[in-house]
Amino acid sequence: MDQQDFLTETTLESVIFSDIINNFSDNSFTKNVKEYDATLEKYGFTYNNLSYVVTLLLTDWYQLTMSYAYYMCQDKETGMRRAEMPAVFEMFFRTCPFGGQYTIFAGLDKVVDVFKHIRFTHSDVDIIKNIFHSKGCDIDEGFGEYLLNLDFTKVTVSSVRHGEVIFPTTPVMIIEGPLILGQLLETLLLVLVSYPTLVATCARRLVNAAQGKKVYEFGLRRAQGPGGADDATKYSQVGGCSGTSHVKCGYVNNINIIGTIAHSFVSGFKRLSDVKDQAITNKITNQHTDSFLTSVLVVRQKLGKQFPEYLETKEGELAAFIQYAITFPRGFAALLDTYNTISSGIKNYIIVAIALHELGFIAIGVRLDSGDLSYLSIECRNELIRIDQFLGTDFLKSTVIFVSNELSEEVILSLQSQGHSIDVFAVGTHLVTCKQTPALGMVYKLCELNGEPVMKFSEDEGKSTLPYRKNVYRLYDSLGIIVLDLMLYKDDGNIDDLIKNGKIYCRHPVISQKKSYHQVISYKKLHHYIWKDGIATSEDTSVYTAKIYCEQAILTVRPDILRFVNPTPAKISVTRKFHAIIEELTDQNKDHEFYDKQM
Amino acid sequence: MDQQDFLTETTLESVIFSDIINNFSDNSFTKNVKEYDATLEKYGFTYNNLSYVVTLLLTDWYQLTMSYAYYMCQDKETGMRRAEMPAVFEMFFRTCPFGGQYTIFAGLDKVVDVFKHIRFTHSDVDIIKNIFHSKGCDIDEGFGEYLLNLDFTKVTVSSVRHGEVIFPTTPVMIIEGPLILGQLLETLLLVLVSYPTLVATCARRLVNAAQGKKVYEFGLRRAQGPGGADDATKYSQVGGCSGTSHVKCGYVNNINIIGTIAHSFVSGFKRLSDVKDQAITNKITNQHTDSFLTSVLVVRQKLGKQFPEYLETKEGELAAFIQYAITFPRGFAALLDTYNTISSGIKNYIIVAIALHELGFIAIGVRLDSGDLSYLSIECRNELIRIDQFLGTDFLKSTVIFVSNELSEEVILSLQSQGHSIDVFAVGTHLVTCKQTPALGMVYKLCELNGEPVMKFSEDEGKSTLPYRKNVYRLYDSLGIIVLDLMLYKDDGNIDDLIKNGKIYCRHPVISQKKSYHQVISYKKLHHYIWKDGIATSEDTSVYTAKIYCEQAILTVRPDILRFVNPTPAKISVTRKFHAIIEELTDQNKDHEFYDKQM
Repeated sequence: MDQQDFLTETTLESVIFSDIINNFSDNSFTKNVKEYDATLEKYGFTYNNLSYVVTLLLTDWYQLTMSYAYYMCQDKETGMRRAEMPAVFEMFFRTCPFGGQYTIFAGLDKVVDVFKHIRFTHSDVDIIKNIFHSKGCDIDEGFGEYLLNLDFTKVTVSSVRHGEVIFPTTPVMIIEGPLILGQLLETLLLVLVSYPTLVATCARRLVNAAQGKKVYEFGLRRAQGPGGADDATKYSQVGGCSGTSHVKCGYVNNINIIGTIAHSFVSGFKRLSDVKDQAITNKITNQHTDSFLTSVLVVRQKLGKQFPEYLETKEGELAAFIQYAITFPRGFAALLDTYNTISSGIKNYIIVAIALHELGFIAIGVRLDSGDLSYLSIECRNELIRIDQFLGTDFLKSTVIFVSNELSEEVILSLQSQGHSIDVFAVGTHLVTCKQTPALGMVYKLCELNGEPVMKFSEDEGKSTLPYRKNVYRLYDSLGIIVLDLMLYKDDGNIDDLIKNGKIYCRHPVISQKKSYHQVISYKKLHHYIWKDGIATSEDTSVYTAKIYCEQAILTVRPDILRFVNPTPAKISVTRKFHAIIEELTDQNKDHEFYDKQM
Repeated sequence: MDQQDFLTETTLESVIFSDIINNFSDNSFTKNVKEYDATLEKYGFTYNNLSYVVTLLLTDWYQLTMSYAYYMCQDKETGMRRAEMPAVFEMFFRTCPFGGQYTIFAGLDKVVDVFKHIRFTHSDVDIIKNIFHSKGCDIDEGFGEYLLNLDFTKVTVSSVRHGEVIFPTTPVMIIEGPLILGQLLETLLLVLVSYPTLVATCARRLVNAAQGKKVYEFGLRRAQGPGGADDATKYSQVGGCSGTSHVKCGYVNNINIIGTIAHSFVSGFKRLSDVKDQAITNKITNQHTDSFLTSVLVVRQKLGKQFPEYLETKEGELAAFIQYAITFPRGFAALLDTYNTISSGIKNYIIVAIALHELGFIAIGVRLDSGDLSYLSIECRNELIRIDQFLGTDFLKSTVIFVSNELSEEVILSLQSQGHSIDVFAVGTHLVTCKQTPALGMVYKLCELNGEPVMKFSEDEGKSTLPYRKNVYRLYDSLGIIVLDLMLYKDDGNIDDLIKNGKIYCRHPVISQKKSYHQVISYKKLHHYIWKDGIATSEDTSVYTAKIYCEQAILTVRPDILRFVNPTPAKISVTRKFHAIIEELTDQNKDHEFYDKQM
């Protein structure tokens, strides 16, 4: 991706505020805007690029009932509340989406942004009290004040990098601090990163499938509401998309914004007389034709002598193309399938593109939105080449062929195997809703409380969790390719002490048979602090940086993990000691377990 | 659904503003808040319940390139621009989601809200200019001013009712006015109603499947971002859900807010000594036990004498339940599957519920979140009944059994056929992401321009459109059941003139063989104005009203259209004259059509 693809204008936010300010000559208003702004902040709102208001009420009700129970659970002697007990929660997922074996982490910028402003406001507390009251539960007088005074600087949050390749089981984020704070963050953190991660992964898979061709996100109208669209547009760039049709989100995030014309534009023109003709100034000579329409008709006649089918193209469509070319001589692009791509669309495009070329302009491209995209893209390219050859030119053949219409990873891979002449895949529904797997089952589990391990044992085996806060290391081979992710727990000490003769002993977290020695060439710590002692990370969490990070990270993943059909699962391991602890805790639970009659 | 289920508190918005205002003694600040608010409005922002900022830039870029082309297409003599040509756009969909044959329309409140504020702001225009400029396109000086002065009171919007049952092909909304305005509204309107309609439909299908049992929306953490969650929570109520876990959206929209405890709450308690014991005052006698923990242990011992397995339940789990009951004696509910539902969870619940009952409190319910929900719900109910019988009581057996864990329409129907003892289905992922069909293919098509019909003929047959603005009537039989939707076009005149001897002649829009006479008992006009002459409809478009509307509307649909397996498509018809016009326009297009080599 080209840095140039990104706009370098000021952001929407600054434009709007300067605009508001400029429109009030009175300086006091400027002051008041800032004051209001500060008030919003004071009241705990975060406007993420003016798109969505995040509050601590963006949560499930049970987080508040549990928090109240943790508050009420108070030691009479020490005055210490369970709410303040030191706890560790970890966020992770159990299965990669889209039938794959890798996932791209995204959404970190929002999380960092939220921590900068997080607190309960007076109105939040009033609402909470109202809800309890409506349920006939009169809560303790002090609870409101307690919530207002909750200090989120007491929480420490570690995360993998924005744009990192991540695998199941390994923590994505680790949240340490008073139990009540960890609990109150659960839903908020899950809803902030789950969908961004899902859509970044979907985008990466599409980009991988496109094998060097560009992928654009064109799905705004199909998204799960305006907020879903914002996330989809933004984080599909992290996965490697090269542009979007979405104006607001594209502008705010400095993403390349793309668009041509719709079928309604074409079908609205009925006849050549619908064109409001105009002169176009020659780009090179600065002379101008008196009538661009006449120039086009001359080209059509000339082509028609050799290829009579050029005289039979749809006139309304030609009129629409001419009008668009008059408006955008430097940016002419056409939609070909309003009537018939081969017999009319591509020919009308060629006619107009030649007329523009005579004035020094190069037409940009064409979009195909229906039919057999393999066949049609090849036929269009052949026609472009045929006319280039006839004219002795070479500008037509390099026309960019965009395709759209229900594209998915599977469709793109099928087009790749059939053969095509497509330059850009514009993906809508399948990207913005992640249609194949529309939710990532990200979870957030308590793993340590008051220094003791916490495990969940579920009747669904796959839903069990691993105890203790983990220190995770990613091990690489001599070529810089990921060997495995290794989880240490607190008693494992330093990873360097576990390496004997350049090798480390690794075990599967729960399957006892799976164990092996691995050579350690290099490793990195997977998590870094993004919020510690009330200070947010200063690292650049922008979409652009995450995109570059992801492009590098994906190169460290084995191709068999990335492949579409039956990909290999990445190896996730624990230390010898950690494995023993997990087994011991599991056995302790089994001792107490009764089996259902059904089992 | 019970009106009582809705909270009647003030909305979040008013609470927040009064809160901000109350915190500033200086009256000038109050004035400034209002001023700032007015400024936001002046600059075109709509805060829908403080959740999402809607602007005209929530659009695809091609809407702006086309708009500029329509602006530039100006008649030299009259000065009239194509942008101002009278146009009609219709919004509709081609296929019902979830393999069904009906859809519930939702999202109308947002549309009405947007029209009240819609306009281009100075910053919008600056952004648009910047984007054109970044593409090397220097747009006409006057275009910015033209956008700023666009008058959206010149648009008329008709819509079906909020909560209406709708079918494919029939317009959902009809947008009439200057071409440029209709074009600029396309993406915005699609993104505002598509997902609400999808999720309302999903909810309705779940409610139908639940056959009188309640359905709650519990999916916040799985939604496609916070905005996706807001829409999902709100519009699943339109479809008939009875509550949500989502605090903010539930409160803002007066939806019943529900929640109990999570696995982390249970697994965090290790032993009975973790309980911070407390007295509970007897609800009836006002006396209080000195130790609720002791009361519980006495109950356990008593049960254990008869049923020794009651002495072997998980103590940590019992501790968690006791702590929760101490906190919420009036609202005790438990999660049963942290260890083992049958051998521990239900028994611990029963122990605590009995102890509460002795103090005059009735425990509310239990939640099952894993395992075979049919088997487990029946076993739990049997155990509740068994202990009721043993004690000679009858309060345990009416415990509300909630289930969660990847519920979907299919799972609920399967549980219905297997048998179960479930009272409430709490649906997450499958509802909030509409997992089975995560996007509704709502489209927005130009059907009339300058009085002339516009049709799109696509290489994909299903993508063709019907010409002209339509007047749609819904015909009912003598039992008030929908017979069909009939579309008239402008030359059809009044529907009453088409009824001969109480019958009307109806044709399929495109399939010539399908035609029939239908008796007309009663009919209604399907659309009403929601925005006309700059005035928004005064009808109540709230979620609550839409929910009641939907409940009534669904009763007018034939059961074979509603059923899960192979539902019958609803009948969509046109008049004799309209059919002829469609056929004629199609033939005109075919005359000009060439067939691809491939065909």
